[in-house]
Parts: sequence; structure tokens; C-alpha cells
Amino acid sequence: MRIELSRAGGKPLPLQISEALGQRISSGLLQKGTKLPSVRKLAVSLGVSQVTVSKAYADLERRGRIVRRQGLGCFVAPLKDGKQGAGDYLERSAGRPGEQSSKDGNKNENHWDDTGGGSRSPGRNGLHKEAGSRRKFAWQEDYGDYLPRAQLWRNFDYSEEEYSFHLAAIHSGMLPLKEIGEAMTRLVAKRPELMSVYGNFQGDLGLREVMTAHLRARGIPLSADNLMITSGTQQGIDLVARTFVGPGDAVYLEAPSYTGAIDVFAGRGAEMISVPMDQDGMRIDLLTKLCDRRPPKLIYTVPTFQNPSGITMSMERRQRLLELARSYRCLIVEDDPFSDLYFYSPPPASIKSMDKDGHVIYMKSFSKVLAPGCRIACVAAEGDILERLIAAKAASDLGSPLLNQLAVLPFIAGKYDAYTKELRAALRSRMERAARLLKRYAPDGVKWRLPGGGLNLWLELPASVNIGELYRRASRQGISFLAGHVCYAGEPPSSHIRLCYAQMEEAQMERGLLLLMPLLKEAMNSRIM
Amino acid sequence: MRIELSRAGGKPLPLQISEALGQRISSGLLQKGTKLPSVRKLAVSLGVSQVTVSKAYADLERRGRIVRRQGLGCFVAPLKDGKQGAGDYLERSAGRPGEQSSKDGNKNENHWDDTGGGSRSPGRNGLHKEAGSRRKFAWQEDYGDYLPRAQLWRNFDYSEEEYSFHLAAIHSGMLPLKEIGEAMTRLVAKRPELMSVYGNFQGDLGLREVMTAHLRARGIPLSADNLMITSGTQQGIDLVARTFVGPGDAVYLEAPSYTGAIDVFAGRGAEMISVPMDQDGMRIDLLTKLCDRRPPKLIYTVPTFQNPSGITMSMERRQRLLELARSYRCLIVEDDPFSDLYFYSPPPASIKSMDKDGHVIYMKSFSKVLAPGCRIACVAAEGDILERLIAAKAASDLGSPLLNQLAVLPFIAGKYDAYTKELRAALRSRMERAARLLKRYAPDGVKWRLPGGGLNLWLELPASVNIGELYRRASRQGISFLAGHVCYAGEPPSSHIRLCYAQMEEAQMERGLLLLMPLLKEAMNSRIM
Repeated sequence: MRIELSRAGGKPLPLQISEALGQRISSGLLQKGTKLPSVRKLAVSLGVSQVTVSKAYADLERRGRIVRRQGLGCFVAPLKDGKQGAGDYLERSAGRPGEQSSKDGNKNENHWDDTGGGSRSPGRNGLHKEAGSRRKFAWQEDYGDYLPRAQLWRNFDYSEEEYSFHLAAIHSGMLPLKEIGEAMTRLVAKRPELMSVYGNFQGDLGLREVMTAHLRARGIPLSADNLMITSGTQQGIDLVARTFVGPGDAVYLEAPSYTGAIDVFAGRGAEMISVPMDQDGMRIDLLTKLCDRRPPKLIYTVPTFQNPSGITMSMERRQRLLELARSYRCLIVEDDPFSDLYFYSPPPASIKSMDKDGHVIYMKSFSKVLAPGCRIACVAAEGDILERLIAAKAASDLGSPLLNQLAVLPFIAGKYDAYTKELRAALRSRMERAARLLKRYAPDGVKWRLPGGGLNLWLELPASVNIGELYRRASRQGISFLAGHVCYAGEPPSSHIRLCYAQMEEAQMERGLLLLMPLLKEAMNSRIM
Repeated sequence: MRIELSRAGGKPLPLQISEALGQRISSGLLQKGTKLPSVRKLAVSLGVSQVTVSKAYADLERRGRIVRRQGLGCFVAPLKDGKQGAGDYLERSAGRPGEQSSKDGNKNENHWDDTGGGSRSPGRNGLHKEAGSRRKFAWQEDYGDYLPRAQLWRNFDYSEEEYSFHLAAIHSGMLPLKEIGEAMTRLVAKRPELMSVYGNFQGDLGLREVMTAHLRARGIPLSADNLMITSGTQQGIDLVARTFVGPGDAVYLEAPSYTGAIDVFAGRGAEMISVPMDQDGMRIDLLTKLCDRRPPKLIYTVPTFQNPSGITMSMERRQRLLELARSYRCLIVEDDPFSDLYFYSPPPASIKSMDKDGHVIYMKSFSKVLAPGCRIACVAAEGDILERLIAAKAASDLGSPLLNQLAVLPFIAGKYDAYTKELRAALRSRMERAARLLKRYAPDGVKWRLPGGGLNLWLELPASVNIGELYRRASRQGISFLAGHVCYAGEPPSSHIRLCYAQMEEAQMERGLLLLMPLLKEAMNSRIM
């Protein structure tokens, strides 16, 4: 186990250590019952005093994350129903839910069984068949890694809940799969050799040209040379992080923000600094003050219909953010999954459209609104920055599959705008339907704002609500949602859940919401549940 | 610019710095004419004395990698024809070769123009159109990155040379593209929703089960739970490195080894330690001595028909290597691209087949021999190690495209063995044909050994040969090969080139070899060329 400590920032070392361990526990990377290293051993390996480690352990114990056993040491605590344990309710036991149900036809109820306190939960990842042999691999537990947080893995993996609200995804019935499938079939028939070549690392030139036209129409006048194709925006964020972010580098981002980005920056050992938002997006005034104290290496933002909050950054703040990046000679990553999915009026121009000197790396997913399984996004950047990203892409996977790139090309070149116009209307109707149901059935004290676009509703619940228990009860009824705390790089300021209104068919979504509302009420009425 | 320095190892700091800068120059990450940081500035940023940096710069100057200009500072040297500059001949100017020729119908001869000494080569990455605007991005040059080496990007990108020997790849005419294309077409027609879902991070369960059966038949008795699907083995190596390897960690590997692995470990700041080989593979006796001095974090090996050397590790050494990993409680990455491609007798059992306690992460590419463009490989590991890799895979790209996974499934389940039997015969005939031509036409002093399988011939040339100039002359005749020095983590011990005999149709391969031989002779007769 390795913890990146920053001695430059203002955060006390014990807090850094307890937060890092807390993240690992929340992510399931440290499982209940796992013995922590002794105070002495951890102090030596981190190069800090034993007092520092003792303080960190005391903090974790106070928060119920670990238990101390006399003469034996400290162990990751069994899952509790307390608020602090909100991160722990996602047990990955007895195989993956989706697989389990497809094999057995029913779900394993032990999934939520909290009784197995003192030992590793058997069967995580389906290893239950060889639970006994786990001991053989005991040496692995001491084998150091650079993976401090993995909420993406823990919260987003494939599942077949009956009522799925947890992924920001569009139901297959709304996607142009027929057209893209036809394009793929044509390619396979006419150009089978596409399956045999690696393609170039930067991505197919033809696709980049089509995307260039698309971006130009949105005020971003770049050439195909300035684009790179990635396997989804997730890979784009990852490539930026591995290339430009390292231990102790300051990465600023909105609070809340996209889980997948937080995971990636955490994996690089970055010091993530969360910037609060208001209705106009990231508080640039606060960001400026924070940057004065600790200059940014990189600023990550989802300025339009932000994930998860739905908030859009105002034009004025976009300009100020760009100015700030110029003055600090740092990069902005502008992650734009949703700008085509506006419901009422088009969002402000992208930050990239105002960028004159290569400070913004702009990322846009295409597969998300067309065929997410194809995993095609573009990254737009200039000069050295782009070249280094291409080099990183090469080392990462030798390039994205060419067939997948070319399968989405005709649609982006052709019907994309007409399609997204229809999609916007359909999503708006969905969102409004969901909002009406919430207004009518959600218990008092639940707060949300109508998003101007995108796929998510971000619900604030009273702080007293035990989200972990709510999650468990919802899951028993086949309902999944995203617990808000995974969207924070640090401690979450309050209790949220994220609901995607587009992942299911409309009627199913409605039934799911109607089932969820009484559970919300129950959770709010009972403080201990 | 950031250089990871290891104070634990025996290598002097000035040498570490000059090697790191040399790697960046060879990789094109630092281009000719780029000004290096001042001695004072670099000393401060690395936390070393100015004397240390001065020594490193003097070493680079002596080797012709940089030039000192009175009163101005040090600059990356213009490309020279000297042996030391062997890494510099691959200029990435005037767009990518493949794209260029498809647009213009001819190749830009400036590609090899060495005259532009004092300035950045215009047009790298096709940026020639905006060469004037490059100045706007000048700030980017000071923006630190974590990308010390990128030979993969530099040497393997898509190209359409008439005679391509540089990629270890199989010509499309030998691949079962028809069957895999048909599978893909069926999937698109019958299960279009596959294009809409993310799939699970670990990979499709059905495909993992088929691969399990495949591995069982090869003596690796794992279950589907122990496999993860990756976008090619390159991604598998990358996931291991990002999860388990960090700055200063000792990674042992064969010398020479696979460029893509070296790039990835370099990117993590690992201290790579090269272990010589003889005809039985990696010298385990030397490895053991080295490990006594510096315990390994990880050992990377391609034990079967090694890339690039073609050498196969003996059974006895495989056992000893595994023993060594057990005693050091470290991981072995066993990269196995070629074991199905033996020509005479099957290779020894894989190291993984003997692994009882999870020390070996085994990687096998399937798409390489079926449809490389599909990018499908598997990683086999156990317990915590596998779980952490799955978490890393999630953060890396949210999972490989499901359609690509399922498109190769039926073939792996069905005709794979019959197909590889035929493929082996075809490749053997190719290899022997190439070897006969070499025997007849290669100049005296060129050495190689007949590989027992795989795709490559590894030619040793006299040390006096200027490989950079040979590459340039070959390229003018439309011939590409891989320069051997990129296969070394440190300084290459001698001059090699790698030729793949499978990338073209047989007749074309023969013509290419016949054209290359006189160039080889020329290169060997002229020391200055």
C-alpha cells in the first residue's frame, strides 16, 4: 500500500493518511477484516513519525472505519449502518449481479449480508468457489499498488437491475443503433482488412475530419490534425492525467464532479482541490484565491449540464476561467458530454471556442449519444500537448479499434444534428415527467433543480438520511442509483443521490421512481433505520 | 519536464539524467533546436547539485545529442549521421506518411531532410499549416509531463511503406477475417443493443469462459473469474504498470525486450534493469545476483519466441524464475503473444501453468493472430491482484467494446486450433524462405538465428554500421524495419534490426528482402556513408 503525501499543501499529514485509507476502504480496495499495517511499519514506509500514523488511525477509528483489537492491531471495520459507512454498502460479493442472475435466475440475497464481520467477504468477483484457496494468495495483500481509489469500478459496473438509475446513459431504444449497425455491416463486408490493421494512434483521419466539421459548427475552428480519437472520454481523461499529472500536482475540480475523473487523478497521486459551485457553475472567485495559495497544474471542469449537478457555467465565468489558466500557464480539461442535449436554450459557447493559445484540452464523447458500446470520443488540443497525448495513447492501447471509429463516421457526418434535435425533445419530456413525479411524490425536504440538459437529476436529501441503508433497501426492490458521495474528491458536504432518467424506457423509469419515493420517505422518517 | 531519479540504485545521477534526456530526444519528445533548461533551473527542479546537471549535459554534448551555444544555453542537436544519433532518424515531419500519401499520392521527401538544424521541424503531426502559430503555444514547452520515452509512438505508427517489415503483424490475407466479419455482422443484426451497453469492466463472461477452456487446454487451469479482457496486450501491460509500478520501483526485463513494455514502465518512472539472454532465454543466474542487490517489484518476460530476439526460455529457467518470484514475493508478467505460432515443436509449458500462488500475471493476445484491429487480449491473474487490475481497467476506459469481444468469441470457441495449425505451417514456410534469402544474399558479418516460432527475425549487424543512415536509405526505397536500439531500456549493446516476415504477402516480402540486402552491404562497407 502506498499513500502519496503532499508536504506542500496545507492539509495535515494525519488527515491525508486517514483520507487516503478511507478512500481505499470506501472503494473496496481494503475490505472489511483486512489488517492494517502496524503503526511502526506504516510510519517507516511513508517516512513520517509514528505519532502521525497513530493520529490517522485514531481518526479512522473515531469515524468507525477501522476497529482496534487489543494486542492484534487495527482492522477494517465491518460494515455499519452509520452515516460514515455510506461508502461501504456496495459489497461486491457472490459474483457480479448481472452474471449471477443470468446463471441462477435469481439474486443472491447474501449480497447485503453484513454479518461476516471479521473475515474477507467471500466470493467477491466470483471467487467464492475458491475462497479456501485465498490464503495461498495472502502475500498479495502486502504487494504495494498505486490505486488509492476505485469508485468507478465499485459503482458503475455492469448490472441488470430492474430499475437502473445509476448510469448516466441513454436507453438503447432511443439510440440510432440501426444506422450504426448498418454502417458496421457495410464496413465488414467491403473492407474486412479494417479488422486486421492497427490504424494510426491518433485515430482515423477521415473520422477526425468529420469531427472537425462538427466542432467548427460549434465554434471550435480546429483542423483534423488537432484531434485525437479515444476509447471514450474516460480514456481521454486518463491520458491527460498519466501524461501531465503526477504525485502532489494540484488538480482543481468542481465539487461535486465526475467520479471517473476523480478516480483517475487520485490514481496519479494528485492533490485534488474541490471548488464549490453555485447556480452559475464553479466559483471562479474562490478558485482564484485557492490558486494564489497553490498554483494549479490542471483544472478539470464539466461546464455544461455538469455531471452530476446539472449546473451550467456562465459565459462570464468561462472567460474568467480561461484567463486564469493563461495567467497560471496551466491546462484546463473541458469535458463536454452533454452540450448537444439541451432542453430549452443552447448552452454558452465552449471554453475551447475562446482558447487562442492551447490552454484547453476539449473532450467530447460521440458514442455516448450514439452507441456507447462503440467507445468513441475525441480530444481536441494543440501543439506539444496533443503530441504527448498521442504518445501516451500509443503506450496505452496502440490505438482504438478502426472498425468502431468508422462505424460512427457516416452518422456524425450525416444525420447527427437531426437526430440530436429529436433526442433533445425526447429527453426533455422524460426529464419533465420525472420532475413532475418528484414534485408530487418526493417527501418534503428533498431538493433538486431542473437541469437545462443532460441525463441526470441530482437530489439533495437531509443530512440525517442514511444513504447506505437507502441503497440497500432500494436494491432489494431492484432499484439502483448513484450515491452522491462518490462524486467528491474529499468529504461530501451533504447527502445526495444521482438519478438518470434516460437509462430505462419511460414507463419503467416512472415505475422505478414511484417505488423509490416511499423508500425515500421511510429513510427520512427513520434516523436509525 | 520531469525526470525520476533513483537514489537507491547504483547508477550515478548524472548518467540517470543524461539517459533520461537522451530517451526524450530519441523519442522526439524533445525535438532538435529545443532549448534545454539552464543548469541552475534543472538542478533546482530535480533537487540535485548544479555539478550533477553539468556532468549530464557534458555527457550529452560529448555524445552529440545536444549542442552548447555560447551565451545562449544548450539545445537539442540537429540530426547527425553519427552512430550516436541512431535514434534520431525517424523524423515525424510533414504529416503522417500514410495520410500524406493517401492525400497527395506521393511522399514528401522533406521527411528526411536534415537541414533544418536550429528550429523545430515544421509540420510534425501535420502542424505545418500552422507553423507560424506554434509560437502561441510556446508556454506548453515548459509544461511538465510524465512521459520520458515514446518509442512506440515514434516507431510503430500506421504507415504504408511498400515493404513493411517493422510491425510484428500478420498479413490480412492469412487472417480469418471472413469468419470474424460474419460473426460481427450476425451480432449487429441480432443483438444491436450490444452497441449501446458498456458491458462489465472485467469483460464479457461468455468470452472469458471460452478463453478459459482455451487456457485449460494449454495447461493453465483457471476459471473465467480469473480472466480479464483488455484492448490488446499493450493495455494489459499498461494496466499492470499503472497499478503496481511507480517511481523507482525495480522492473527486471530481458535485453532486448518489447518496446511497448519499456515505454510503459519508463512512463511510470520505474528503474528498469536489463538482464542479458543466451540461447535458453533470460540469464536467471544473473537475474538472481541482480535481485540480491536490488529486490524486484516486477519481472517482465516474453519467454516464448521472445520479441524481438525469437529466443525461447528453457523449462528449467522458467521454474527457477517462478521460484525467484516466490522468494521475493513479486510479480512476473508473462507476455505470451506467440506460443501458438511454433514451427517445429511446441514450446515448454507456460510459467503460469506452474504458478500455484498467484505470482504470474499471464497475458495472451487473441486478436493478434485473428484480427489485430479488434484489439482483444486476455489477462489471467488471481485474487487481489486481478481485482486491482479490474479497477484500473475501469478508470482506464470503462471496459473494452462488447461487440469486438463477442465477434472473436465463436472463432476462439471453434476453429482456432485448426486455423493456427495452418497458420503455423504458412509462417514456417515464410520464415524459412526469408532465412534462405538471408543466407544467400546477406553480407558476411550479419548474424541471426532461426526462430522456433513467432513473426520476427532479429539480425545483428557489425557495430560499425550506421543504422540511422541505413534506415533512411531503406525508407527511400519504401522499406521499413525496426531499429534494434528501441528494444533496450538502456544503451543497446550492439547494432540490430528486426524484420517481420509476416506483415506482407510472401512475394512482396521476398522483393523487399532482395532490395534490402544491397543496402545492408553498402552500410557495412562504408563507415561514414
